[in-house]
Amino acid sequence: MQRIQQLAAISEDTDGVTRRFGTPAFVRGQHLVRTWMGASGLHTRLDGIGNVRGRLESPVSGAKTFVLASHIDTVVNAGKFDGPLGVLLGLDLLENLAAQGESLPFHLELIAFSDEEGVRFHTTYLGSKVVTGAFEESLLIRTDAEGITLAQAIADMGGDPAALAQDAIPTTDWLGYFEVHIEQGPVLWERNIPVALVTAIAGQQRVELTWRGMAGHAGTVPMHMRQDALAGVAEFVLAAEQFGLTHAHELVATVGKLDVRHAASNVIPGEVVCSLDLRSAEAARLSSAYAELQALAETIATRRHLHLTWNMVQYTAPVSCHAGLNELLAQAITEAGHPVVPLVSGAGHDAVPVSEVAPATMLFVRCFKGISHNPLENVELPDLAAAVEVSERFLSLLLTSEIRNGS
Amino acid sequence: MQRIQQLAAISEDTDGVTRRFGTPAFVRGQHLVRTWMGASGLHTRLDGIGNVRGRLESPVSGAKTFVLASHIDTVVNAGKFDGPLGVLLGLDLLENLAAQGESLPFHLELIAFSDEEGVRFHTTYLGSKVVTGAFEESLLIRTDAEGITLAQAIADMGGDPAALAQDAIPTTDWLGYFEVHIEQGPVLWERNIPVALVTAIAGQQRVELTWRGMAGHAGTVPMHMRQDALAGVAEFVLAAEQFGLTHAHELVATVGKLDVRHAASNVIPGEVVCSLDLRSAEAARLSSAYAELQALAETIATRRHLHLTWNMVQYTAPVSCHAGLNELLAQAITEAGHPVVPLVSGAGHDAVPVSEVAPATMLFVRCFKGISHNPLENVELPDLAAAVEVSERFLSLLLTSEIRNGS
Repeated sequence: MQRIQQLAAISEDTDGVTRRFGTPAFVRGQHLVRTWMGASGLHTRLDGIGNVRGRLESPVSGAKTFVLASHIDTVVNAGKFDGPLGVLLGLDLLENLAAQGESLPFHLELIAFSDEEGVRFHTTYLGSKVVTGAFEESLLIRTDAEGITLAQAIADMGGDPAALAQDAIPTTDWLGYFEVHIEQGPVLWERNIPVALVTAIAGQQRVELTWRGMAGHAGTVPMHMRQDALAGVAEFVLAAEQFGLTHAHELVATVGKLDVRHAASNVIPGEVVCSLDLRSAEAARLSSAYAELQALAETIATRRHLHLTWNMVQYTAPVSCHAGLNELLAQAITEAGHPVVPLVSGAGHDAVPVSEVAPATMLFVRCFKGISHNPLENVELPDLAAAVEVSERFLSLLLTSEIRNGS
Repeated sequence: MQRIQQLAAISEDTDGVTRRFGTPAFVRGQHLVRTWMGASGLHTRLDGIGNVRGRLESPVSGAKTFVLASHIDTVVNAGKFDGPLGVLLGLDLLENLAAQGESLPFHLELIAFSDEEGVRFHTTYLGSKVVTGAFEESLLIRTDAEGITLAQAIADMGGDPAALAQDAIPTTDWLGYFEVHIEQGPVLWERNIPVALVTAIAGQQRVELTWRGMAGHAGTVPMHMRQDALAGVAEFVLAAEQFGLTHAHELVATVGKLDVRHAASNVIPGEVVCSLDLRSAEAARLSSAYAELQALAETIATRRHLHLTWNMVQYTAPVSCHAGLNELLAQAITEAGHPVVPLVSGAGHDAVPVSEVAPATMLFVRCFKGISHNPLENVELPDLAAAVEVSERFLSLLLTSEIRNGS
């Protein structure tokens, strides 16, 4: 908790915490974490994309690597726990192991990913994509709000944008991945339980819908002659909500953005653009929901004589956590005296790209009222202690399990 | 039509027509209209607020004044007909009367009001308020977007802001008021009829509603735990629409503005501000609708655990057109061979302040698809001819009716 507070004091501004990838505040945070890792007995380095990496080596010839990680970049005006919790909790675990000095059956690597939020370059998982070898070179020419390219930002931190591939852990070397993260939702808070087992990370479909009717004077066009685009969208908002409620436990559906073009209180809305965010842990459920909501939107538009444009802007496939690792994590939770609450993560995490190359699992920690991406984000000390205990037990089970052999 | 085209060529910019009160383009338009009035045989003057006024005097001692008027200011990117149609059609009528040289039983005054739209100083009817004696001196310190006060704008056009009261027609001198205006709505277009008799100008209630729920992550907050402010507003939009449809012919209800605060596609809307515009020709209907919709909004908010702020921002009372004048106008319409279509004006007009001091009536002219406040605004030549014929017949009936004696 002390380290979390210290790291949180490093920010681009004084309201909340803001440490976007590659900013001076980010670099200060990066060096502080590296210093801590070094002092804890890890072999440390900064890789090309700015990840802080610390290793405890195994003497076993041909040993694989198990990674504990989370990220140290933040959104703007963030809280203290989203990201740093997993990194600094992992540091605690490896510090203890290093102090014990026992010989490890596999390598352990703690990684503080440099960019998970994607705030600066509008593309997420930069850090974990480099480590998994999934980084696309085409991203290097992306620019931030000031016109600085990603390649330049990497060079400014001392990295070589042309040599990022060298920082990947070869696919054959991965043993597994464990990430501790705050839930960022209200389920644990409502159920009064400190930790949860993440079974999957929801896939996501993001759609931009444009509804065109006929603008008109709010006083002179009779009700029955209107083609009010906003009234159509209102029907869709309620239909999406009802669809989500009907399929609870399977998906969530959200209209978060809604923009009435040329809006005025005395003008009937002629054009409205809105978003749809659809998430589910099951790929089939996600794609059928997508199709059903599209059909619903088209029915509404047709009935109201509106022109609808349905534009898919993002698709991320759902990811299942690794059954074997989850079994160990469930055991650790039980041993620590907590009920095992299986949760689907509605938010994306570095575990998403990692799961492409390695068995991955996650532990969620209760946060205050589920609030996140907000200076009010908080984790209470007993919950932090529970997360440490569960993680220690998990690591201990892992060190003695069959998984250590990569089975 | 030629004069309408010529006046429309005078604009602040080259897209559409823009002649806001007191701008150089406005002043050029004002002088052109005054020149036309003078050439038509009227005694002309510019009054303090910039109205162009032209009179045909009656030789009768103690004669009252009948006013024909509309406005020559426009909204930004306007059409050619909203305002100028009534002024230039009135000019045609008075030009003919002047040419006939007959003695009039009452004075006739043609007024081109200088500000009906209220675009520059965000307050409508400046021109007609001065003529009716309803101008409030407190408006003089209002500023436009550049910080220029209304008093300064008046002085810049050569007026004396302290002497506006002198430009009012004394209440006892008013005989009546007639305004020709485009409908700005689709009813005549849909029914394929050139003109309509305006029976009343709708009153208006404008409300700003703020709905507060709880913002949250679109992926991590389960559907049943949400307090989605946008979903509540969506219910209200549909409830207002349904209410309007149920009470068709009595009122219109419009949600024209809707702003999701801190909107993002992956954030559950925590706060939404929307407008409600409610219009009816009947004061009792307007106030009961206002109360019913407020109760509906509160029911929705309570059920959804949202906090609702209901803030009335404008009230304008409905205005009935004068029964006696309407009878003459209906007769003129019938004589010209058209069906009498009684219409409530959903938009406000200079007839609103005038009706406080004098009998007033209006004739609506069909416009292309009901489009207005848009460069596409159009009136076809046969409809213009119909409006001229009806207005001539009306004026002729008026000159021989009992109303000329103020009965």
